[in-house]
Amino acid sequence: MSGVLYIVGLGPADERWLTLEAQEALAQAQDIIGYEPYVARVPMREGQTRIASDNRVEIDRAREALERTAQGRNVAVVSGGDPGVFAMAAAVLEAVDHGPKEWRDLDIRVVPGVSAMQAAAARLGAPLGHDFCAISLSDNLKPWNVVEKRLEHAARGDFVIALYNPASRARPTRVIDAFALLRRFLPGSAFVGLAKSVGREKEDIILTTLDEVDVSLIDMSTLVVIGASGTKRITRESARDWVYTARKAE
Amino acid sequence: MSGVLYIVGLGPADERWLTLEAQEALAQAQDIIGYEPYVARVPMREGQTRIASDNRVEIDRAREALERTAQGRNVAVVSGGDPGVFAMAAAVLEAVDHGPKEWRDLDIRVVPGVSAMQAAAARLGAPLGHDFCAISLSDNLKPWNVVEKRLEHAARGDFVIALYNPASRARPTRVIDAFALLRRFLPGSAFVGLAKSVGREKEDIILTTLDEVDVSLIDMSTLVVIGASGTKRITRESARDWVYTARKAE
Repeated sequence: MSGVLYIVGLGPADERWLTLEAQEALAQAQDIIGYEPYVARVPMREGQTRIASDNRVEIDRAREALERTAQGRNVAVVSGGDPGVFAMAAAVLEAVDHGPKEWRDLDIRVVPGVSAMQAAAARLGAPLGHDFCAISLSDNLKPWNVVEKRLEHAARGDFVIALYNPASRARPTRVIDAFALLRRFLPGSAFVGLAKSVGREKEDIILTTLDEVDVSLIDMSTLVVIGASGTKRITRESARDWVYTARKAE
Repeated sequence: MSGVLYIVGLGPADERWLTLEAQEALAQAQDIIGYEPYVARVPMREGQTRIASDNRVEIDRAREALERTAQGRNVAVVSGGDPGVFAMAAAVLEAVDHGPKEWRDLDIRVVPGVSAMQAAAARLGAPLGHDFCAISLSDNLKPWNVVEKRLEHAARGDFVIALYNPASRARPTRVIDAFALLRRFLPGSAFVGLAKSVGREKEDIILTTLDEVDVSLIDMSTLVVIGASGTKRITRESARDWVYTARKAE
């Protein structure tokens, strides 16, 4: 008798962005598997096994979760944000696709969560209020020319752009290359928002432009939002400006 | 003394996708304002005023919420899904932008939620596991040629595409036009998923292709997902196939 494999989104920070469905899935799980900082965010529960690993072994982690589920355990694979957006849901299904045929019959349930870009948008106002793209700048698994092609079409299509994984220790310069490319298609005055560690103690929200962005501020905890032609800024004296993308194109 | 205006995402269906932050905001609110079916989903609480309106009066609803907040009420404007994605957060900030200067100083807090495309993706597997776009087909507020330009760039950029508002009573044919355009750039075998009424009693999930999609199945409750070159289908005998977008481009 096999168990249930929950792929659970914890949201971008503490439990305030956890859904009821996610709480229930975590309560059902006998084994909690994930990248160490995400596993650490799951409340301790007696008898639960916790298997924390490094961020670069997604497929190994997915296989371990599937093996345990096949052996009859109820397992929760945890992701920050939404597991369906640049996270563990695709990794688990990739492992199913290339794994033993029995894994196709396992009871796998994806439990969605608030993604990093949505939390960042909430802090900025409503920059994703109209058509937008999400692009990961990670080139671990895709060639950089694919990233370039997508950035170009996102800019030419006048989409608001959310950039995931803008920096890494292995390649700190890729966001510089991405901004250089975007400047060929977008005005220098285009809105750029940097949302750092949203919901966490060190949260920092920076409003700037494509011409003036200081790339040294961008680290692995940063979600970058680039505005479209309809993105507007509301100046305020008492607090940080609001940014929103008007539903009406101009 | 003015109140607090919460712009709250209820998630796509019942309370299972509600966050703790959203629950707390709803508990703080003296007035609940929104499109009637969303207001109906908020648990009744003694003394709360409920102001439900038609879907087409977003800006009026936003103004009413801002006026009440300025008068000292704590107000929750509720949206299905995430208020930041094609929903009330942009409408409220648009009203602030064009309203009296005092509104800029109001305490407005955007409370993110799980969006319809994330719930749809969870049911399908992990189609949004890699770079994707979200496009609203509504042409109430933007010219159709803007929609066409974005569809073209989304397809040429090899993005997974989530289509919001694929049908309306006013213009039932726009999704037909959208598919016709996409067929110029994408193979007929491209994955198409229709996620209808996700999380609700009438939920229906349909897996098909660009060549074979039956547009008569698409209504206002449908979220449409169109795959990219990396989107794969895992055939299963015991249950509906899984769909995911591989992190590695091919």
